[in-house]
Amino acid sequence: GLDRIINSDPVAITFFIGYMAMFASAVFFFAERASVDGKWKTSLLVSGLITGIAAIHYYYMRDFYLQTGSSPTAFRYVDWTLTVPLMCVEFYLLTKPFGAKGATLTKLIIASLVMLVTGYIGETSGLDNNIFWGIVSTLGYLYIVYEVFAGDVAKLSQSSDSPALKKAMFLLKIFITLGWSIYPIGYMVLPGNLLSGLFEVSSIDLFYNLADAINKIGFGLVIYSVAIKESKKTT
Amino acid sequence: GLDRIINSDPVAITFFIGYMAMFASAVFFFAERASVDGKWKTSLLVSGLITGIAAIHYYYMRDFYLQTGSSPTAFRYVDWTLTVPLMCVEFYLLTKPFGAKGATLTKLIIASLVMLVTGYIGETSGLDNNIFWGIVSTLGYLYIVYEVFAGDVAKLSQSSDSPALKKAMFLLKIFITLGWSIYPIGYMVLPGNLLSGLFEVSSIDLFYNLADAINKIGFGLVIYSVAIKESKKTT
Ligand SMILES: CC1=C(/C=C/C(C)=C/C=C/C(C)=C/C=O)C(C)(C)CCC1
Ligand SMILES: CC1=C(/C=C/C(C)=C/C=C/C(C)=C/C=O)C(C)(C)CCC1
Repeated sequence: GLDRIINSDPVAITFFIGYMAMFASAVFFFAERASVDGKWKTSLLVSGLITGIAAIHYYYMRDFYLQTGSSPTAFRYVDWTLTVPLMCVEFYLLTKPFGAKGATLTKLIIASLVMLVTGYIGETSGLDNNIFWGIVSTLGYLYIVYEVFAGDVAKLSQSSDSPALKKAMFLLKIFITLGWSIYPIGYMVLPGNLLSGLFEVSSIDLFYNLADAINKIGFGLVIYSVAIKESKKTT
Repeated sequence: GLDRIINSDPVAITFFIGYMAMFASAVFFFAERASVDGKWKTSLLVSGLITGIAAIHYYYMRDFYLQTGSSPTAFRYVDWTLTVPLMCVEFYLLTKPFGAKGATLTKLIIASLVMLVTGYIGETSGLDNNIFWGIVSTLGYLYIVYEVFAGDVAKLSQSSDSPALKKAMFLLKIFITLGWSIYPIGYMVLPGNLLSGLFEVSSIDLFYNLADAINKIGFGLVIYSVAIKESKKTT
């Protein structure tokens, strides 16, 4: 338990920081819902749910790591199974005013579930298989990148005439390509995988914790800032 | 306890996902109540209660399963005894604008209690009796299906002129026939019952957890989407 904190174990410290940051962000998004216009309230609610769900799982993961010293893989994927589809809902809500269809949302959610289920199999099935499953999972990820850059989501974002929204759509693409790409890099430190010589196994959680903070909180703040700008216009 | 998580026990994982999904949905329905018109507020409140009650029972069931490794049957039926009648209230609220009567609601609730009491007897009375009680329980279920397809509920849904509401009524039928039918399929993995050779006993909870997510959250979201559409019309 506590000896990991006393010895400044970096993984333990990032679990503490991550927990508190997610919790505080959830409080922030829920409270600021009151300050934005109608249709933005749902987006901020979803941001609050993403960071709130993450706060609870960081609480579990932190304790699990303190007690066992190993990666809380199951909790991590339970969290992602809920929060990644909710991130897709965020993209959908952002593009809905320009005609996004429910079918696009369904495609994104299916692709993300393929990515996560195969990723989980890869992390738990051991040494020989993690490269194979990592590749399958990456195909799911690349499909999402494709949708956002060339598919339905991309087409819709062109038709907006709000500079604030255009900027948010641009940042969304950066988050999905750069922010999300930290996860597969973390995965590659697994034993037998590409980066396994360069990092310790436990540093997988450093990558994942960093990526979660950027993607969950950062993207929520981007939406928050568009919401505030667009709400000022109409009042 | 925790070893079930470390070993990726699928039943334990679905209890974790189920707990968090129910909790998040309850927060969602309560928060979004503020964004819909008067008469829809009650429907969203009931959706919030159904998922909120379920969140608490999933919390108990998850811990019970982690500690004992066996099915939390009593908690499951405590949950259903409250949430199934509330689902019937949802159908009633949906058809009330077209003249649904309190008597129909009473009939649906009595049928669902017959279904649940006999189902519980079947799950706890052991090997020799679960087929008999399962059949009795299924009669209660079929009565509900009958009401929705040919009885009072069916007649009323024809008289609506809102496409959004007609679609919701259509989806309601799908939920009751397909979504709810996952429960009796799960029941059939009990020892001595029809599917007991094909699945492990513990997979009964996989079926029930999947079905609960579809029926409690999925149906709540259908109502939410009608509520949003109908509320926009009047403002
Ligand atoms: C590509 C790839 C992966 C991608 C994971 C991603 C992209 C996770 C995103 C999580 C987010 C955005 C959470 C936010 O709430 C895995 C599963 C590590 C396995 C290896 C291959
Ligand atoms: C037919 C049948 C059953 C049906 C259960 C159902 C239909 C439960 C529905 C629960 C819902 C909808 C909860 C939502 O909140 C049992 C009891 C398993 C016993 C075997 C026969």
